[in-house]
Amino acid sequence: MTEKIAVLGAGSWGSTLASVLIENGHDVTLYTNVEKQAAELNEKHTNEQYMPGFKYSEKLRATTDLAEAVADADEVLFVVPTSVTRVVAKQLKEVLAKLNRRPLVIHASKGLEIGTHKRISQILQEELTDRYCSGIVVLSGPSHAEEVARHDITLITAASADIKAAEKVQDMFTNDYLRIYTNDDIVGVETGAAFKNVIAIGAGILHGLGYGDDAKAALMTRGLAEVARLGMAFGASPLTFMGLSGVGDLIVTCTSVHSRNWRCGEQLGQGKPLDQVIEDMGMVIEGINTAKAAYDLSRDEHIEMPITKAIYNVLYNNADIKEEIGGLMTRDSKSEVIGKRK
Amino acid sequence: MTEKIAVLGAGSWGSTLASVLIENGHDVTLYTNVEKQAAELNEKHTNEQYMPGFKYSEKLRATTDLAEAVADADEVLFVVPTSVTRVVAKQLKEVLAKLNRRPLVIHASKGLEIGTHKRISQILQEELTDRYCSGIVVLSGPSHAEEVARHDITLITAASADIKAAEKVQDMFTNDYLRIYTNDDIVGVETGAAFKNVIAIGAGILHGLGYGDDAKAALMTRGLAEVARLGMAFGASPLTFMGLSGVGDLIVTCTSVHSRNWRCGEQLGQGKPLDQVIEDMGMVIEGINTAKAAYDLSRDEHIEMPITKAIYNVLYNNADIKEEIGGLMTRDSKSEVIGKRK
Repeated sequence: MTEKIAVLGAGSWGSTLASVLIENGHDVTLYTNVEKQAAELNEKHTNEQYMPGFKYSEKLRATTDLAEAVADADEVLFVVPTSVTRVVAKQLKEVLAKLNRRPLVIHASKGLEIGTHKRISQILQEELTDRYCSGIVVLSGPSHAEEVARHDITLITAASADIKAAEKVQDMFTNDYLRIYTNDDIVGVETGAAFKNVIAIGAGILHGLGYGDDAKAALMTRGLAEVARLGMAFGASPLTFMGLSGVGDLIVTCTSVHSRNWRCGEQLGQGKPLDQVIEDMGMVIEGINTAKAAYDLSRDEHIEMPITKAIYNVLYNNADIKEEIGGLMTRDSKSEVIGKRK
Repeated sequence: MTEKIAVLGAGSWGSTLASVLIENGHDVTLYTNVEKQAAELNEKHTNEQYMPGFKYSEKLRATTDLAEAVADADEVLFVVPTSVTRVVAKQLKEVLAKLNRRPLVIHASKGLEIGTHKRISQILQEELTDRYCSGIVVLSGPSHAEEVARHDITLITAASADIKAAEKVQDMFTNDYLRIYTNDDIVGVETGAAFKNVIAIGAGILHGLGYGDDAKAALMTRGLAEVARLGMAFGASPLTFMGLSGVGDLIVTCTSVHSRNWRCGEQLGQGKPLDQVIEDMGMVIEGINTAKAAYDLSRDEHIEMPITKAIYNVLYNNADIKEEIGGLMTRDSKSEVIGKRK
């Protein structure tokens, strides 16, 4: 069935997901607040800043008018940076109130709100409420926009408390190169997606310090166990962290040289000061903010997260990297069973 | 406490684990059935065939006399190839019967017995019985012998139905570069270790075919979910597959260019015929045998394992690789929740 979908955010992932939906026969309007970008998409069907060299379908329409984008949308897909999710949700609510519409809301962003540590679905729910939102579905998993755009095989998860809504999103996106798995654990999916960047910084640090494959695999495994413990405190199923949004995304993030978070860790491990790493990167390194969120939450919830704490200490307390790593190895001997809280 | 330990098998992993135990202050005898290797270890303290360039402690004693090796051993550590586990266990039983001893038995091998598809702890239990074995503990996890030998950080799991025995092994091996986690799920640990090689062949195939990071991460994630489902049919906990012996070992195997299984898959993906791959490799590619075991077991237990089946068809039924991969993408849409059996 053809759906009318508004995609909010024309970065590499937003424009690629819009393109997938058009290829799947849906009616899509892409919203961006940058006039020049909308004009480029409408006239040249390109998005050079985010997807250099890629040509989109001529059917892809872009607009800077939010009301126009969502005017008759059955679904609204958020693909905006986490930092602006709340403000865009407030704008959307105004528009939907005037239109008197209540779409299904999907999001494909990763992260937590700075300060509140809230997940993206929580922000959307708070701002839109049930009055302007018929359900919330999260899309997450190991997915480089460039690989999806060139029709490489990608598998991702559609998670929602309402499994019918997740199945609807599965139908909308599935084709012969993109395969969607449903999951009813939205907390686990969002938590895994947000905190993988912290583990990626840790894996990068080990690489920068010259440690081998064993140490990196161990840090990824034990890091994931920590994140699962944290997620469980908020109601997530530990098994979700074994899925595409958990271990799947973690593998891509920790083994791809494109990951900013991994590269940040690598440079720290090589001895570059944090200020310098941030300055040279020139882009937001999400894992730095998320490391603070993870540390704060673990302290508030009394959950043992030694890897997170070590990375937090390196990033925020100027701790010696080698001492922090050594500290991880000299803790009391442990059981590896997940779910025991101390 | 100083333990007297017999290590059976002087390959790279066996000789390295023996060396770790000596460094930890234990009294170790290393058994090999190769006279020349024992002489080299005793006289030059090297093991050039398996650990080129590495110098062992002068305290490491090697012998080709099994009775001498286990004469007063409190623990016997098996690190022999899976294919000879049963015959060595039979020999050990004879010796223990004469000595009237009942040691704790540890093993650090990965695989299943060809034909019976039995796990290594099952073979040991069958041959030694409770009469000659006071308990069985498995050591498993992401561990290159070379990295442990050079004191890089490595974390592995000690699993046993008897958690006190696992904790004893944890104490024996733990030091400042090797950290042991206990687990009571011996079935899950052995199953994950055996079947990771099948998934590694699959990841290698995708790489050889030119697929990107998304596809490889997805195959690893969904492959692990399949193996977890199979393990659960034999009583394993799905969470064990999220641990060091599961995802940890899988990450090392699928991201290390040293993995024979991954390289086998890569060459198949590049179009090289299987016979040629096996001939050129010149060593056993364990995942080829294990793929048959996994396929047989999934059929017998009625467990859906589409990735395993695709790899089995490529290896044993001369199936077209691209068609099999395409087949994986066009299956019915699914939930990612682990543990639902069809």
